[in-house]
Amino acid sequence: MNQDNSPDVIGIGTCTADMLFVVSQPPTYGRSWRASQYLRQGGGPVSTALVTLARLGISTRFIGRAGADPEGVFIREEFQKDGVDVSRFMLEPNVFSRAVLVLVDQTTGERCFTSRRETHTPLSVSDLDRQEIESAKVLHLDDADEASVQAAEWAKAAGVTVTLDGTWHSEELVDLLLPLVDMPIVSEVFAQGWMPDAPPEAVVERLCELGARIAAVTLGEQGCVAQWEGGTFTLPAFPVEVVDTTGAGDAFHGGFIYGVLQDWDAAEIIRFASAVASLNCRQLGGRTGLPTVGEVHQFLAQFPGTDSQ
Amino acid sequence: MNQDNSPDVIGIGTCTADMLFVVSQPPTYGRSWRASQYLRQGGGPVSTALVTLARLGISTRFIGRAGADPEGVFIREEFQKDGVDVSRFMLEPNVFSRAVLVLVDQTTGERCFTSRRETHTPLSVSDLDRQEIESAKVLHLDDADEASVQAAEWAKAAGVTVTLDGTWHSEELVDLLLPLVDMPIVSEVFAQGWMPDAPPEAVVERLCELGARIAAVTLGEQGCVAQWEGGTFTLPAFPVEVVDTTGAGDAFHGGFIYGVLQDWDAAEIIRFASAVASLNCRQLGGRTGLPTVGEVHQFLAQFPGTDSQ
Repeated sequence: MNQDNSPDVIGIGTCTADMLFVVSQPPTYGRSWRASQYLRQGGGPVSTALVTLARLGISTRFIGRAGADPEGVFIREEFQKDGVDVSRFMLEPNVFSRAVLVLVDQTTGERCFTSRRETHTPLSVSDLDRQEIESAKVLHLDDADEASVQAAEWAKAAGVTVTLDGTWHSEELVDLLLPLVDMPIVSEVFAQGWMPDAPPEAVVERLCELGARIAAVTLGEQGCVAQWEGGTFTLPAFPVEVVDTTGAGDAFHGGFIYGVLQDWDAAEIIRFASAVASLNCRQLGGRTGLPTVGEVHQFLAQFPGTDSQ
Repeated sequence: MNQDNSPDVIGIGTCTADMLFVVSQPPTYGRSWRASQYLRQGGGPVSTALVTLARLGISTRFIGRAGADPEGVFIREEFQKDGVDVSRFMLEPNVFSRAVLVLVDQTTGERCFTSRRETHTPLSVSDLDRQEIESAKVLHLDDADEASVQAAEWAKAAGVTVTLDGTWHSEELVDLLLPLVDMPIVSEVFAQGWMPDAPPEAVVERLCELGARIAAVTLGEQGCVAQWEGGTFTLPAFPVEVVDTTGAGDAFHGGFIYGVLQDWDAAEIIRFASAVASLNCRQLGGRTGLPTVGEVHQFLAQFPGTDSQ
């Protein structure tokens, strides 16, 4: 913790209540099917990255809003269970939080998502406290709403490292947020939406041209491609028995930020992040398989060679 | 209440935690969809019938088991919210309760079910108290497991009215339970499984031959066909704006048992039950739209003519 009880990492972004069902075939109307597994868990890119960091022993705070419905209460409980600071997580009466159904194919691990959207008020600039943002070491974001952009501006001006989980491509994200982000890590979907047909190497190069100190594109089971200070790094995903890839990207971000806080070099950060993401795929749900620091190092010890190019 | 704090109606049967998503198309892998509505609610044929009765002001008790997982705790809370007595509802540690995903098509109202099965110990005969069963006025069942059959035997011998929600056809249900049931009400699916190609009139006739005092087949939006003491009665469903038919059959049973407890004649009982079922279809979920007694009578006052043949 910094002074004044400030957390090392502040997150502003998506929070969801996820309902996961593992099924042998997609549901069809008029029929009844069995699910082999069911799990209810908190989710959302920034939210799960904070939980990842909390499991790794880092102090974190989520600044955001949700409805005071059973899902919002559940999302808060899920944060609290892992010690994420919820003192700035506001639940608003008589509106909905985001509820997400995740169907996971039990053979292929393919997934589909169905979301009931939130109806609560979005976080606004007036909800923010500039000093609070400035006192963090890292600000982690996943959306380009008004509050996120304002927080990123304050953070950048104060030298707080700004990290971004670019899951879905949008013009706002590229135009308003990317110029403020020190370390953008984007999904393949984001990369394809932004620079269609460009290889990931071109995407990270462009991100660095826009000001990124470290940039990466995550490629699922293909691992990731990263660039910093002119160097490029390709790391395949670590071999694990994959049960569910939900939250793998979120966990990657948590591991990444952990490495940033340790002042490791970029290759070491990416390698650690990749291990956290892989370990998280061994169990159902975005948070069930999140490792401790010891577990990550123990896992990495099996792969002593460096994978950098 | 009877003496010794005994409830009027004891239910033994299925209890579930239902997650309902209203969607514009069935989920497909690799895609994200919006759900227009989401609801988490307790469910199960006997369970929702007891909740229906509780809303109608009748004292009820559920005898059963579930896991002490979040779903089991939720199922218990859902009973308690409506005043169903849960003093004999046992939650077992380290096992699962049944979790059910219900997808509802927002245009057609078609539904599909995906269940993660329970792993808790089934209710056994040693969990039962004969005097407790004998002190109820009605015993309501939906399955032919060992405990249900034993409870039905005791109830029949003591003159307690035994009612059955025959949702899915099984040989056990027909062979072991039907002979003990005073008032079986079965679904179209049950009827087709038991007597393929037979019209509902033949099904209720056969149920009466087996000893039923009142028998009925529910036919969804086609209403129901009932028989008693040689008379047959066909009642179309009441016209309502249908949002979701989940729990319509369960609500029918609750309304039916309410009428039985009032000592009404069979036609009046069926008419009341049908109104309760129709009113329950106006809102999402098996329990959201359950009416009070006053609401049912107010609704029925719009349809003064008798529909009996």
